[in-house]
Amino acid sequence: MIKILLDAMGGDNAPSVNVAGAVRALNADKQLKLVLTGREAEICAELAKHKYDKSRLEIVDCPDVIEMNDSPTEAVKRKQSSLMAAYWMLKKEDDICALVTAGSTGATIVGGQLILGRIRGIKRPALCPAIPNSRGGVTLLVDCGANAECKPVMLCQFAVLGSAYARAGFGIKEPKVGLLNNGTEEHKGDPLRQETYKYLSQMKGINFIGNVEGRDIMLGECDVVVADGFSGNIALKSIEGCGKLVLGVMKKQFTSSLSAKIGYLFARKAIKGMRAQLDFNKFGGALLLGLKKPVVKSHGSSKPETIANAIANAAAIHRGRLVPAVEELLDGEDLNFAVDDD
Amino acid sequence: MIKILLDAMGGDNAPSVNVAGAVRALNADKQLKLVLTGREAEICAELAKHKYDKSRLEIVDCPDVIEMNDSPTEAVKRKQSSLMAAYWMLKKEDDICALVTAGSTGATIVGGQLILGRIRGIKRPALCPAIPNSRGGVTLLVDCGANAECKPVMLCQFAVLGSAYARAGFGIKEPKVGLLNNGTEEHKGDPLRQETYKYLSQMKGINFIGNVEGRDIMLGECDVVVADGFSGNIALKSIEGCGKLVLGVMKKQFTSSLSAKIGYLFARKAIKGMRAQLDFNKFGGALLLGLKKPVVKSHGSSKPETIANAIANAAAIHRGRLVPAVEELLDGEDLNFAVDDD
Repeated sequence: MIKILLDAMGGDNAPSVNVAGAVRALNADKQLKLVLTGREAEICAELAKHKYDKSRLEIVDCPDVIEMNDSPTEAVKRKQSSLMAAYWMLKKEDDICALVTAGSTGATIVGGQLILGRIRGIKRPALCPAIPNSRGGVTLLVDCGANAECKPVMLCQFAVLGSAYARAGFGIKEPKVGLLNNGTEEHKGDPLRQETYKYLSQMKGINFIGNVEGRDIMLGECDVVVADGFSGNIALKSIEGCGKLVLGVMKKQFTSSLSAKIGYLFARKAIKGMRAQLDFNKFGGALLLGLKKPVVKSHGSSKPETIANAIANAAAIHRGRLVPAVEELLDGEDLNFAVDDD
Repeated sequence: MIKILLDAMGGDNAPSVNVAGAVRALNADKQLKLVLTGREAEICAELAKHKYDKSRLEIVDCPDVIEMNDSPTEAVKRKQSSLMAAYWMLKKEDDICALVTAGSTGATIVGGQLILGRIRGIKRPALCPAIPNSRGGVTLLVDCGANAECKPVMLCQFAVLGSAYARAGFGIKEPKVGLLNNGTEEHKGDPLRQETYKYLSQMKGINFIGNVEGRDIMLGECDVVVADGFSGNIALKSIEGCGKLVLGVMKKQFTSSLSAKIGYLFARKAIKGMRAQLDFNKFGGALLLGLKKPVVKSHGSSKPETIANAIANAAAIHRGRLVPAVEELLDGEDLNFAVDDD
């Protein structure tokens, strides 16, 4: 049995979407137990609409809800909120393996750092989405928003975290790691990139393939792309914007004439396959890496399917032994060469 | 008559593609004169394959060619190269309006700064592609790679340059300007973004709408997105990668079964419309802004159509009076508040 926490109140359409996602995940994995934190009455009203194995679902009543625009540092003090109560349980209860939330990103990061805590040696947690790529697999982009300002040692640790995720989550033994830069040549970029390049080349446990460009996130050869949280965020959201535009244009064009509509009917399966291959929600969200247990942060606008995917992904990552993989990789590295002043 | 220079030797498939593009541009615009720089014999051999008005095409023989991996600072000294010879003519000859090249980006930037020169008051030139957006128009992303490291005053000037391009190239009277950031709230980002936000808000001639995210480049409301060259480059290439992936997946899916192939036949026009709406080459490349005359930098892998579009775009920008628009906008601003130490 794997026991996973779900913040039932996080996200734009909570708790209805969260509860529907929880039920879907429970029905798909008989080895799964879920603990939902949030307003019990609201959760029960939603649960009444579904069929599921009641013995594998537990509710912890939390009267308080953190909103998207609450200050994260204030939010972390609200122990009776669905998110922070979940973090306290995740910290204290050994049999709980992971947390899934679609709530505020800032509060999720701060709560993770201050309540759950980081893996020994890790300076900062990092957000890491799995982005579909042209090889039919995924590229892990780390960091994509937790740390706007970075030092070389942090980027080196992101390489460790991303490599561990590639192993634990996707069974890639020697994940290829690239450094996101404005060109592929060794000397490219600002001093942060130039220094990090040097350090990454020296790391024993990291399969560093050099600088990569924005296009390589979806088209390239590497499994892990290391970035500061600022440019990683720009990359991720630029890709999301492009994907959304394409789907919008496609919809418009395929309803633009009778002939196009007929074409759509014949090609429906192909178009569905296309959408599936470009599906950003396959893994339910970004993994918050570097904490003592896996935390999956889903999009605020998640659908039931997204939440279910996030729960399944959290379970898979725990089964793949993410945290031990991070510790093992970190143990083998001498990051003193990249030590900074904080 | 508008007289434009084309570096006939720049790019992966020069001079054949460049010459084909030049002929296409000449045939489309009877008000156009072209001067091609490069190896005369090779250019003539290519020209022999085409029909065009010989009275409107001139060749300047340049024996030397700058390659993609030549050092830009060395390249700028090679006055007999097709690119630098073009820059010298652009500087000296009043009747030549603009330059188009598909050659090395680095050499194009350095040549522009050192030979042609910047508009008075402009600290650095910036690369600015026009990216298709969901409103059916374009978003101008400035800078996308000329300046990896930026200061607030540079970003403020990019806002001026982008606004002038939106006016001169696309007839947008009061272009909306956004600052590329990792969130839309005012306090978001690193100190560079926070300071720039403050300064942009104070600029009289800039219609600043606040922070925008990567997704807003294609989905948002603004006409100009201001970025440092590092994150702008990441954004542009991430979008390019996503676009390429989508086209690849589409091709694969529409040939995956007989039914899909039939669907393709019926929806062919819709798919063509989709491609056209997502066409990155509509304007032939990125504009190098901030120089005394317009310079269009096309992709190294340009097709004849791309080169022709670049020439047409250069002509349109000259007709739209880009450089006077920059000077006028700059004159109205007191950028002393953003003065830095260089």
